[in-house]
Amino acid sequence: MAAALTLAERTRGRTAPNPNVGCVIVKAGRVIGRGWTAAGGRPHAEAAALAQAGTESRGATCYVTLEPCAHVSPRGPACSDLLVAAGVMRVVGAIEDPDPRTAGAGFARLRSAGIIVDVGTGAAGARRTMAGFLTRHTLDRPFVTLKLATSLDGMIATASGQSRWITGPEARAHVHLERSRHETILVGRGTQDADAPKLDVRLRGLEDRSPRRFILSAATTGDSVIAAPDAIGDLPGDHLFVEGGAATAAAFLRHDLVDRLLLYRAPILIGGGRPAVTDVGLSDLGDAHGRWRLYDARALGSDRLEVYERAR
Amino acid sequence: MAAALTLAERTRGRTAPNPNVGCVIVKAGRVIGRGWTAAGGRPHAEAAALAQAGTESRGATCYVTLEPCAHVSPRGPACSDLLVAAGVMRVVGAIEDPDPRTAGAGFARLRSAGIIVDVGTGAAGARRTMAGFLTRHTLDRPFVTLKLATSLDGMIATASGQSRWITGPEARAHVHLERSRHETILVGRGTQDADAPKLDVRLRGLEDRSPRRFILSAATTGDSVIAAPDAIGDLPGDHLFVEGGAATAAAFLRHDLVDRLLLYRAPILIGGGRPAVTDVGLSDLGDAHGRWRLYDARALGSDRLEVYERAR
Repeated sequence: MAAALTLAERTRGRTAPNPNVGCVIVKAGRVIGRGWTAAGGRPHAEAAALAQAGTESRGATCYVTLEPCAHVSPRGPACSDLLVAAGVMRVVGAIEDPDPRTAGAGFARLRSAGIIVDVGTGAAGARRTMAGFLTRHTLDRPFVTLKLATSLDGMIATASGQSRWITGPEARAHVHLERSRHETILVGRGTQDADAPKLDVRLRGLEDRSPRRFILSAATTGDSVIAAPDAIGDLPGDHLFVEGGAATAAAFLRHDLVDRLLLYRAPILIGGGRPAVTDVGLSDLGDAHGRWRLYDARALGSDRLEVYERAR
Repeated sequence: MAAALTLAERTRGRTAPNPNVGCVIVKAGRVIGRGWTAAGGRPHAEAAALAQAGTESRGATCYVTLEPCAHVSPRGPACSDLLVAAGVMRVVGAIEDPDPRTAGAGFARLRSAGIIVDVGTGAAGARRTMAGFLTRHTLDRPFVTLKLATSLDGMIATASGQSRWITGPEARAHVHLERSRHETILVGRGTQDADAPKLDVRLRGLEDRSPRRFILSAATTGDSVIAAPDAIGDLPGDHLFVEGGAATAAAFLRHDLVDRLLLYRAPILIGGGRPAVTDVGLSDLGDAHGRWRLYDARALGSDRLEVYERAR
């Protein structure tokens, strides 16, 4: 399942409205097929893995990060039907599909054909990897990642507004990689006017993966503007990257609309600068606790990245 | 030498004006003596280790974190003489003693007696462990540790001033342990008036290790007041623990008088609160870089501690 989750990561941010699924088919201890949802949503991971395994699939075990779909679409057959037709012996699925067209019907179809079905292996990793799809289905909005790049004392600029650069080239390259995994990116009107950031992906080979830009602004309406954080349900795609500034970060936090926090920190002290987050409406310190859980930390050059997820 | 450095840590903060030295005597691959500078400064580490090894010391190797002293004092003999008398074959010393009464004379005394002397093993660790003694000898002031306990966004209190608690019990216990390794502790007048913190050590068995309290205040003079950071040379002991608040932290940073930064961080966001450090006089962001180097990071309950040292 770990291998299937790694495959699922390949097209995170490029399969909406389909989920980014990963699939590995194993027979006699050997991997005979690997697949992932293609960019654009088709073919599905199971179809790709089965095509690679061919007739070897008979009697094999299929590891898949999401329940195989039960519905036939104009763009392809149902994956549960494909697995039955291929004669696999066992399917290990990480989680059930929340899509009402499947939602248990995929696993039921497999079981009714005599396939052994186990559900739950790698569920936490699957929920993380396919968080965009799951958030869209459960909360009717994209999964929101907030990026902050600060000094050790939490500043994003000096008192005079100087912010280039706090973090180094490795951390900034990592931000570009993260951008490439999001359909949309958003900054506040203030950041747009002050810095006019490009917000594109400047990594060799990934130049075509720049997310669509949106501005958070109550004052203007237009194609690329949203008026308030709680209007993000209308955004295209399943992954939104919020890049700042401090008022925009606070607006999303105030609405409890941040699912994941990327905290890039440089080993510097600024002192008396501009804080990363303005007022979030916290009246009692106790209410701040228990909301964030660290799940990754790494060095990026002399900077450090910490990844927190909202504990819900 | 790693074992000797661990022994040296035992009395860090309790041997001034003597260094906290560690010593291990090894013969035929077996440790036959271990010693460390006793609280109060005597006996010295080498004397203690030699006493334990007894006549076995003849032909043995002595690992010691600092050059053995060459000067006889009313409180005891010179350690270099003791090592010669014991007949050790080889001495491995981490660093030379900056005390002008020794400063190379200790190693010279050993060599003139035919003992093999190697210098430099574990030097970086020795400089860290005995940083108080070394800072007093080179900069004529105590080694300064600044403690900050913040949210992920660098705040030490909410906008209304609520600060209890940001970090959890494990982090707070660690602060008490750190206090126990310092002769003096300091807060600013503002923190003193607002919080009247006890600043003592409330760990079972270490209640008698509370450092002497001082207040940073330009307005008052008195026994326990210092007027400005650059007056810390007059403080007793070789280790000063600076606990806040934000203006005091900034004052020490502005004077470049912080040698080590303990950053305790809770996994919370406060937003629009009170930052950990006020203006440090930074005019160009570039000047903030290259000053701090991470050398330890660990989890303390749900909080994290990072230890940075000033890169000089």
